[in-house]
Amino acid sequence: MSSSPALMPDDPAVVLPTFAEVEAAAKRLRGLAVRTPLLESPALNDRVGGRILLKAETLQRTGSFKFRGAYNRISQIPEAARPAGVVAFSSGNHAQGVAAAAALLGLPATIIMPADAPAMKLANTRAYGAEVVPYERDSASREALAMEIAERRGATIVRPFDDAGVIAGQGTCGLEIAEQAAALDARLDALLVCCGGGGLTAGCALAMAARSPGTAVYPVEPEDFDDTRRSLAGGERVSNAEGGQSFCDALLSPTPGHLTFAINRRHTAGGLAVSDAEVAEAMAFAYRTLKLVIEPGGAVALAAVLANRLETRGKTIAVVLSGGNVDPQTYAEILAGRPGPV
Amino acid sequence: MSSSPALMPDDPAVVLPTFAEVEAAAKRLRGLAVRTPLLESPALNDRVGGRILLKAETLQRTGSFKFRGAYNRISQIPEAARPAGVVAFSSGNHAQGVAAAAALLGLPATIIMPADAPAMKLANTRAYGAEVVPYERDSASREALAMEIAERRGATIVRPFDDAGVIAGQGTCGLEIAEQAAALDARLDALLVCCGGGGLTAGCALAMAARSPGTAVYPVEPEDFDDTRRSLAGGERVSNAEGGQSFCDALLSPTPGHLTFAINRRHTAGGLAVSDAEVAEAMAFAYRTLKLVIEPGGAVALAAVLANRLETRGKTIAVVLSGGNVDPQTYAEILAGRPGPV
Repeated sequence: MSSSPALMPDDPAVVLPTFAEVEAAAKRLRGLAVRTPLLESPALNDRVGGRILLKAETLQRTGSFKFRGAYNRISQIPEAARPAGVVAFSSGNHAQGVAAAAALLGLPATIIMPADAPAMKLANTRAYGAEVVPYERDSASREALAMEIAERRGATIVRPFDDAGVIAGQGTCGLEIAEQAAALDARLDALLVCCGGGGLTAGCALAMAARSPGTAVYPVEPEDFDDTRRSLAGGERVSNAEGGQSFCDALLSPTPGHLTFAINRRHTAGGLAVSDAEVAEAMAFAYRTLKLVIEPGGAVALAAVLANRLETRGKTIAVVLSGGNVDPQTYAEILAGRPGPV
Repeated sequence: MSSSPALMPDDPAVVLPTFAEVEAAAKRLRGLAVRTPLLESPALNDRVGGRILLKAETLQRTGSFKFRGAYNRISQIPEAARPAGVVAFSSGNHAQGVAAAAALLGLPATIIMPADAPAMKLANTRAYGAEVVPYERDSASREALAMEIAERRGATIVRPFDDAGVIAGQGTCGLEIAEQAAALDARLDALLVCCGGGGLTAGCALAMAARSPGTAVYPVEPEDFDDTRRSLAGGERVSNAEGGQSFCDALLSPTPGHLTFAINRRHTAGGLAVSDAEVAEAMAFAYRTLKLVIEPGGAVALAAVLANRLETRGKTIAVVLSGGNVDPQTYAEILAGRPGPV
């Protein structure tokens, strides 16, 4: 993406998505995306001494929030460009979101995925009818591969986060949180969002700025992949160091997006980070007490609450559970206290 | 219970709980029981060709519906009898419901539980502050043991299902289903309820008869423990044969209750039964696709839908997911396709 001049951060031609586009996305998604519940657990509230409202995007179509952005983006592809289909690169959840959205809209989809992505994510993406092109994580750029395929076929690239349509779609998650919290008469002190490239955070931050401006929005990342936290702290986009490790396979993007960072620096309160051990404990808590299946990358925001990364006592905090696509064997190992690499 | 003349089925003095008592229970439980969501999964709907609405009692306080009946019953114990506390016998979910309700109301609780109950159920019951008295499943009657303790201490017995207050409390689950379905403009053709002694079925059947009389209510049981199905078919209470096997530890009661059967014979459409293999497949489907943790006994109603025990095509069917308290090792074995005895 950094090779595309239209996406340079200081380019005055860059138009960031607005809250109006989040609202337009909500209309497009009506009846198609699941309006996921905002759950509350007395046991969790008791444990942290506050009121925690859990936005269960694990219950979204395809098992993660990614369907929202993918559908919003793909549904806006002009009629003439549809037969050539879409191309996406993704660690797995965006892959499923794109595959499912393309299937609903009748477009062919090609998805470039890491060969070592969780088996469930590979299988589900294929089950939605997409062609999966595996690549080695450490080899040539997946973006270059996507470009090449897109040019050859005339297909449209659906980026995982640095795209206005995708960000606006993810923002419908935040819009629902604001509406659902209001229906509960709950004033949100904070919203914690699982963060990879920052698309969900940016979309939710747009929604909160418009509908719940008193809410502090925090992206939450794995410790070795806290590029958004450090970028927010320093005021400019920085990348993760090489060689970092995390089993949060959904959150391993190296650098904040141009669009996402431009939004997140304006509309978030700074980043938080958690260790894999804290994520594993959050997943086990969710299993034991909440009875919800959460994948590693989907549990980082909950982990931040359980590990006291911010004050919870007396506060009302919304937490996005962003995905639940975890292979059974990995899950069993995590529940048994043996989290390994995915 | 069969030794208590006041509970004989033909005794004209027996007063069955009514829908008004379900409504009164709903008032008592307001703000204490979780109003669990009625979930919908496009993937599940696609699979069965109908509209399935999932009442996720797995998300209830204590991880099962049992808190509803326990709290409703215990909150009606007269002031003078409260200090002596409550006694219950339970395979584990009623144990947790009674322990949590007693703790909220400040009563001491003693629970008689099978020594081989799932470790999570034993640990949680103790964590709510209850005294747990283990007994061997095949040994002397747990009811006699409960009676003995109750008499010695002056404590109140909280029966797991054959009690008007307990049935009315469980009925609040059905009342919520009726209200939530109405809010979705969904006309329920059927409601499937996981069934052990029949308390949840009876409570829900009372609610449906009053609020959604066109809905056919079906209790669902494990094949070897289909006493309610056979009792409904024959018109009188019959017991399960000795030696039956199921890993649905929550649903192993031998005979329908007096009160529950009297209600269920009037207000249900007959029983359904599923095999343990079908239950294991339903639990794996819930993990993979719904991202919900369901215990064996909590998955029988979903199993009936997935195994085509009734017509789903074009129908709108509510399904209770009644509990999610399953030990991690058991769960891992079930997801791996090796369901063993609990």
